[in-house]
This record gives sequence, C-alpha cells and structure tokens, in this order.
Amino acid sequence: MKLPPNVSQADFTAALQAFAKVVGNEWLFTSDEDLELYRDSYSVVWDEAEERTASAAVAPDNADQVVELVKIANQYRIPIYPISTGKNLGYGGAAPATAGSVVLDLKRMNRIVEIDEKHAYVVVEPGVSYFDLYNYIQEKGLKLWIDCPSPGWGSLIGNALDGGVGVTQASYRGHFDASCGIEAVMPNGRMLRTGMGAMPTAKTWQQFRPGYGPRIDGLFKQSNYGVVTKMGFWLMPAPESYTTGVITVPKYHDLIPLIDVMGRLEQSKIVQGLWMLSSPTTGVRGDAAHGGEAPKIDPAVQVILNDPNGADMNKLDAAAQTAGVPFWACELHMYGPKKLIEAQWECIRDAMGVIPGAQFKLNEVRSLPLPAADVAKMFDTGPLGIPSLRTFSLGPMVSYEGEDVVGHIFFSPVIPRTGEAAIEAMDLFSAMARKYKLPYPPMQFPSAIFERAFLFAVGLPVTRSATVNAKIRDIIRELVVTATERGWGEYRTAPAFYDLIMDTYSYNDHALRDVLESIKDAVDPNGIMSPGRYAIRSKNERKPKA
Amino acid sequence: MKLPPNVSQADFTAALQAFAKVVGNEWLFTSDEDLELYRDSYSVVWDEAEERTASAAVAPDNADQVVELVKIANQYRIPIYPISTGKNLGYGGAAPATAGSVVLDLKRMNRIVEIDEKHAYVVVEPGVSYFDLYNYIQEKGLKLWIDCPSPGWGSLIGNALDGGVGVTQASYRGHFDASCGIEAVMPNGRMLRTGMGAMPTAKTWQQFRPGYGPRIDGLFKQSNYGVVTKMGFWLMPAPESYTTGVITVPKYHDLIPLIDVMGRLEQSKIVQGLWMLSSPTTGVRGDAAHGGEAPKIDPAVQVILNDPNGADMNKLDAAAQTAGVPFWACELHMYGPKKLIEAQWECIRDAMGVIPGAQFKLNEVRSLPLPAADVAKMFDTGPLGIPSLRTFSLGPMVSYEGEDVVGHIFFSPVIPRTGEAAIEAMDLFSAMARKYKLPYPPMQFPSAIFERAFLFAVGLPVTRSATVNAKIRDIIRELVVTATERGWGEYRTAPAFYDLIMDTYSYNDHALRDVLESIKDAVDPNGIMSPGRYAIRSKNERKPKA
Repeated sequence: MKLPPNVSQADFTAALQAFAKVVGNEWLFTSDEDLELYRDSYSVVWDEAEERTASAAVAPDNADQVVELVKIANQYRIPIYPISTGKNLGYGGAAPATAGSVVLDLKRMNRIVEIDEKHAYVVVEPGVSYFDLYNYIQEKGLKLWIDCPSPGWGSLIGNALDGGVGVTQASYRGHFDASCGIEAVMPNGRMLRTGMGAMPTAKTWQQFRPGYGPRIDGLFKQSNYGVVTKMGFWLMPAPESYTTGVITVPKYHDLIPLIDVMGRLEQSKIVQGLWMLSSPTTGVRGDAAHGGEAPKIDPAVQVILNDPNGADMNKLDAAAQTAGVPFWACELHMYGPKKLIEAQWECIRDAMGVIPGAQFKLNEVRSLPLPAADVAKMFDTGPLGIPSLRTFSLGPMVSYEGEDVVGHIFFSPVIPRTGEAAIEAMDLFSAMARKYKLPYPPMQFPSAIFERAFLFAVGLPVTRSATVNAKIRDIIRELVVTATERGWGEYRTAPAFYDLIMDTYSYNDHALRDVLESIKDAVDPNGIMSPGRYAIRSKNERKPKA
Repeated sequence: MKLPPNVSQADFTAALQAFAKVVGNEWLFTSDEDLELYRDSYSVVWDEAEERTASAAVAPDNADQVVELVKIANQYRIPIYPISTGKNLGYGGAAPATAGSVVLDLKRMNRIVEIDEKHAYVVVEPGVSYFDLYNYIQEKGLKLWIDCPSPGWGSLIGNALDGGVGVTQASYRGHFDASCGIEAVMPNGRMLRTGMGAMPTAKTWQQFRPGYGPRIDGLFKQSNYGVVTKMGFWLMPAPESYTTGVITVPKYHDLIPLIDVMGRLEQSKIVQGLWMLSSPTTGVRGDAAHGGEAPKIDPAVQVILNDPNGADMNKLDAAAQTAGVPFWACELHMYGPKKLIEAQWECIRDAMGVIPGAQFKLNEVRSLPLPAADVAKMFDTGPLGIPSLRTFSLGPMVSYEGEDVVGHIFFSPVIPRTGEAAIEAMDLFSAMARKYKLPYPPMQFPSAIFERAFLFAVGLPVTRSATVNAKIRDIIRELVVTATERGWGEYRTAPAFYDLIMDTYSYNDHALRDVLESIKDAVDPNGIMSPGRYAIRSKNERKPKA
C-alpha cells in the first residue's frame, strides 16, 4: 500500500479506519483496481516516478461528512485532494497534485439543491454534472439554459473552480464568473458561506455577488484553500430563437480589422454569442468540435500549404483570390427574439463595412426548442446549451513519433485580442508544429474568445511512451519560455507544470505567490488540503528561500 | 496632538519625521485645520467620543513612496488609513475606521497610467476622479465612456473598492466587477500585481481577469489588506445613439409582473441600460437625482397619501384609475445603433404584453454625442457617461427634529428582485418613516437594480445634534434587526456600523469573519492597515472570544 508523504503506516491505517467510520466501508477505496480510476489517463508522466497517484480515495455523501473527513485528515496530517467528477482532462484529471494524497471524491454529492426560474440560478453540489443539470431542467420544463463545455460530463463546480469556459452567451461563458455564492469546508474543518450567504437568514445568496466586506470567492479558484460543497450559478433564460451568421473576409490580413470590429461589438454587447474562426482557403476550422466533411482545398493552395518551411501567406492570399475563396470566415451564434437577432446582424454588417469584400450570410432564424431530430443531426450542440460527448468522436491525433496518442495535454496561453497577436501566435504554433512534426493543422485559432483577450488551448499529444512524453514536456517548457518572453501567461495547467507556470508569475520576486502562501499558512497550517495544487504550499512543504 | 492608540509620543514623532522625509514636509498634515478636512462631514457621531478622527495625514506622490510609508508604519506600529479622494459620503467619507490613524491620502497619485481605446480599458491611480478621466477622454477624443456614480467627484479606485455602482450599461455598473488588474502595496510594504499582471512581461493585465491560480482581487474590496496603487477598469465603447423609453402600468400590483418581465429581459441582456421606477399616481420618483418640476398629484390621491396610518393601496389604485393616471412608470435608458434600440424596444413591448393596460413611449433616438446645449439642459447626465455634481442641488431634507440636516447616512440592504419583496421593503420603510417622522416621500424605490437583486439605499438625515444623531443610530439599529429577520443583508455601511452589520453575517458562528481575520493576521501581523475597517481586526486588536 502506498503511503502519503511523512505519514506512518500506523497513522495512515488509523486515518483510513476513521474515514471508513464516517462514510461506510463501501465508500473508502484502497485497492489498486479502484485507485486506477483516479489516475490521470492523459498524464504526461504516466508510469514515471513523477506520476502523482492516490494512496486511497474516500467518497462522502454530504457536507457534514466532508467536515468530519477534513478533521480526521488534520488529526493524522493526511493530504487530501478533493475532486468533483474528476473530468479535468488535459489539465490533470482526477489525480492529486501530491503523490500519496487521499482523493476526496465528491461524486456522491450530486444534489441539485435549489433551482429558481425567476432569478435564473441554480445551487448544486460538486457531483452534479452538466448532463445531470440539463436533464433535470428538461424534466421540470424550466425555461433555463445551461452553459457547458465540450464534453459535458464534467461537474459545474469542478469546471468553474478549474477556470473552465463554455460556449453560449458571453456573460455565462466564464464559469467562475457566472457563479454566485460558495459553501466551503475550510482546511480546519469549519464550514463557511461566502457573500450574502454568510447571513443565516439570507434571501439573496445566489442573487448578489459582492456581499459585505472582502469578497473571498476567488480564493477557491485553482487553489487549495477549502472544499467547495455548494455553489450557485447564474443560468441563461432559454432564448426564443437561434441562428448562426457567417461573415467572410477575403484576405489574410483582413483578420486584423475583423477582430477589431468584433471586439468593439462585444464590448458594446451587440455581439454576445460565441464566434469561431475558420479559414475556407486553407480548410482549417478553429471550431475543432464542428465535425462534418473535410473541406475541399484548392490544389494550388495545397501546394503552398505543403511547403516544409511553412506556408507563404502572400502566396496563399493570391491563391485564395484566384480560387475566389475567402481567407477567413467568422461564424457567430445568435440568440433571442427574431427581430432582435435580425437587428443585431444588421448592426454587425454595418460595422464590418470597413472591410472591403466582406460578405454576410445570416442563416434561418429558428424558433426554440428545435425538433429533437434536428438536434440529433447537429455535431456540436453546446451552443444550444445541450451537453454532449461528441467531441470524443473526433480523435484527430492517432499517433505521434510512432506511438499511439492516448490523449492530450494543454498549453493554454492568454494573448492580446488583436489580429496582430493572433497572427503572431499562429506563426509560433505553426513553427513549433513543423519543428517537432506535431500532427497539427497548418493554423491554430483561439479556443476561447473573451471580450478583451484570446485564449489559445493547444492540445499536445500524450502517449504511453516515456521517451515521447519527455519530448512533449520539453516542447511545453519551450512554449512556456517563448510565451513568457512575449508577455503571454498561461491561465491553467496540469500538475506536472504547476510550478513551471507559477514561476512565470514572478513580479517583484514572486510577491503574489508569497501572499498566496501566507494565506495558505493561515487557513491550512498543517498543509493537508491539496498540497502543491497550483504550486501553493504551506510552510512545512515549502523549500527555504535562496 | 492626538496620538494613535498604543503609540508613544516619541514613536509618533519619529514616525511623522520619517513620513515627512519620504513625502516632504508640505505633504504631511498635522494641524487641526488640515485634519478637519479628513473628518466625515456626514458623521452620525459628530463631535462625540465615538467619532473617529485622524492624528495626521500624509500624501505620497507615487507607489514607491507608499511602500516607504507602509514600512515606517510597521516599524512604529502606526495605524494608517488609505483614502483615494475621500468622497465616500454617507458611508464614512475620509475619516479612518480607528481614531488616531494616520490618513494615507492618495489624492496626489492622480495619473492616468494607460488608456487603450481598442481594448476599452484604463489604468488609473487612486487620485484619478471620474471628472479627471472624463476630461482626459474628451481631450484625447477617444470613443470611450465612463460609468460614474452621482456625484462624479469621487475616485474610480475608491468607489470600486467601497463597492460603488454607476448608471450606464449593466456590465459596467458594478465598479469592482468592471475592474481588471490590481497593483497593491501589502501591509508588509511589498508591492504585488494581481492576475496576469503578476507576469513581469504581461501583455494582458487589464484584459483577462481570472489570472492563474487563486484570484485575490476581491480581497481588496471593503477591506484592510493593502493599499491599491493602480487598478484597471473596463470602459464602455461610446455608443452611436441614445434614448429613453417609458413603460407605464396601471395598477399597484402590476409592479410584480413588471419586475419579473424586466428581470428576464435583463438576464437575457435584451435590457442593458439602467431603469428607474417612478409612480405617476403618487408623484414619487425612484430616480432622486432627476430634478425638474414637482409632479402634480390628483387631490383625491393626496388625501389618501396623507393618511397618518399610511396610504391604503387599494384606495390609491382606485383613485389612480379614476384619475386615469398609471400607478407605475419605468424609465429605461437605451444605447447603441438606432435600429438596435428600436428592435430592443419592440422586444420589450412584446414581453410586457402580459400586463393588461401597459403603455409604451419610446423617446426620439438621438445620435451621440448630443449638442453641449442639450446636455446642459439635462439634470442628470450620468446615464450619458458624463459626471456631474448636480445631485447636491437637490437637498430634499432640510431639517429633522428641528435640527438642520447636514447630510445623510445610508442604510443599504440588498433584497430579492421581485415585486413582492419591493412592496415589502416599501411598506417597511414607509412605516419606519411614519413612526419616526422622517422627511421621506411616501414610497422608497430601489436605488440600484441588479439582474437578480435590488439594492435600497435609504439615506437617513444626519445633523449636528448628538441627541438627534443618537435617534438616527437607533433607527438604523432597528432597521438592521428588521432587515436581518427578513434575510436582507447590507452591502456597505459607515464605520459606526461596521461591527453591527458584520455581526449579521454570522453563519456558523461567524466562520466568514474568522477566515477574514486569519487572512488579516497573515498579511498584516502588526495590524497597521486600516484597523477595524469593515470590522476586520488583527490578532492584537481582537477581543478574546467568549
């Protein structure tokens, strides 16, 4: 049996017995077979010494049991690692940040505690998945939408705490930002409620975010300061109708004004739905989850794309013009009453008029809900607030360096929201792909578009070969250095890179990390809660400063 | 000379000398005359033992000087109290939370550090007022708006940190929520940057809020964890055109569906501008800053309103119908391209169709900017992003209990966003007004309308009479008790009530406050930063627990 670090066999056995007394023997997991499920199947250090595996797992049924478990962990100094549904794929999955931790698996806590149609919010426990909530809303016939990432089997709370984003209206897409009100068990076993929920009689816990005094909700994001046992989320009222519209612009450098105009429209809330880039000329789609037939590419374009030194964009531009194919297309999802969608589309056309040759196609505005048969035909139902697992059917990477690709690990920098920065990022990722023969399309587009920033999430292939995985780790290290030089910081990463990335946030000799660690010492003096998560360590785990 | 608590005359003198060495003698203030300016002129404990006055004030020119001053404060254990422009009127003004503190007056730090039209953000120092920023934008001819509270002489940073709200588009109205990126000097004199700004090369500090790891920005709101020296704010792109629209509904209880429909429209982002209630029947306007002629009230209505037991709403309803005057009017500010405003208005009309007798008037949609002469005629220019001081010309309360009213102190509960709760609150405030003969109109309307909550900010009269002020304090205590019973928590208060209100946020034996105080101990072990602010105290200031 694996032991947590610095814990004796006797103490560990005693702790496990105490855990079992709280949850029942059937909810304590110690066998290799059971613990296999808590490994990160996309681990880039699979089966290596650095892989962080659990020593046990325990699954409480409710928050009171969480309190008891945390107290026991303190008593025996057992590191515990809470997960919701453990689907943080590409960023660490269910595996703990410190090897030998006991995973606190919250999957049984899957109650939808409250849902309010009028105020459009829900309160959930960590085990509630997007599917669970979607199905519940359908059963009850509530006029509410969810905003889910793709795939949709993850937990609302887990996704929000990991910094996840979705695909519907702008104000609901940032999942942590769309939350309101947290209940958490602190590392000392004490339960608290944030915001208005700190008033025992509170009527506006999920309705007013700021609360009174400091706002501590942000401390629970990508951290190790407590176990979130309940969280409120604002939901989008189900819109009346839906459509997509496509804007095309002819030339490569038209990307710059296209992004500028879209930015202003989004800052003004005229554009509120998700939009994704694609390049009809090169056949590359930013919307990787779109599926459908592979696009036909002009043979002259294909020759340019095949250039081993990278495609010459001037040549591509000329070839696109000859072929009469626009270089860029921007597909936008739109929601609301039909007359509003049509007016928004007119405003978008007017604003895009600054780009010569821009063309516009508004698809049919359809009343919602769509017939089930039509939904079934769609590849990606996320923009309609319907969770799916279809993204797994894509599997574009089959092998790398002769090894089967089993998953991906993300390199996820945030870059300025300009065409210039997007082009710089695309050039960089293309060059890296050529240099390391990565099985990528010739261009990488932003994965998430925020009002004032782009997020690229570049999935690097993970195999079961230690040699190939070591190479991938080197590539990620190189990417992090390059990105940092450019001022692009990563927003999220897997445990293998927590420290590497935190080290880049070094302003004033790591002043931010030092404050985060002083807070850690204050709330978790024994360092039992997810030690090392996002590179935050309590006093007894930190190395002395040089 | 007044001394800070537990500081010797010798240490205080030495500290003041050290302060002066940093900022120059002319920026250290110790005379009674100078310190008078730091009193809270709206204090409800004016000239009483409980009034919290400063022992000195010091005004640094830049963040490096703040670092030096904070280090000196630590050395001599001097409590310091940072203010931006000190205009937090009705909530404490410039006066410190603990008597004898040295006010750290940041008014000289009034640089607009960076403004970016494309990404629509600004980085300011604490001394930058809404007027400063507005004037700067006009001079540079930038297509950006500010969102300012009324009056507009306050600081962007101060207002955001105090939890202030403005009056333009929904996503810019919550000033803390509209911020992105903080630079702060921590109580140990160390400077940090939050979010992406923790990367020294960062290109997206003001562009991406979540950052990497825990998000600590919220810790700087209504707190005492550091001195904010720079802060980024997202700005609204200047809209093309503007208008207002008015919806009227005939009956008292039509308020319930009116609020429900508006709520759904706001959650759906179809309504994005501010709206304010008024009651044409009773002549009461929620928009206190509107000015203009006093409305004419039907004589039969006036008789009912004069009932010493409070107006009978059924009778009022009947009288309104006889007089042919709608009970409620909802005035909405709207922005954007003309065709979008018109489409939004049609959507609003369609949605309000569920209320029999609802009527609609869309005023002329005017291109922006309006001619200066037209702006000059407007009473309240805030919804056009133009700061003013005109709210001071209203002065509706001239005397109370025979004493001159010199200002107001706010009681500011957050209540559920329903017509039922609004009616309950109005009834409560009317009853309190009658009971204590407060010089109020017969109804109080929400002061700020959020997507999922209402904020009432009820201004109680402040005089220079200790007797009358004591009565006002009793009324506030009574209101707090009553509100807490109903589950309504206050979002902000003046120093005299920091503890009273914090005590209402008592879930699980004050677990939230205990965490806030453990963070305080971690970041400010000497308790030198704004001790007592929002009832947060370091170990050496706290009373031992019972």
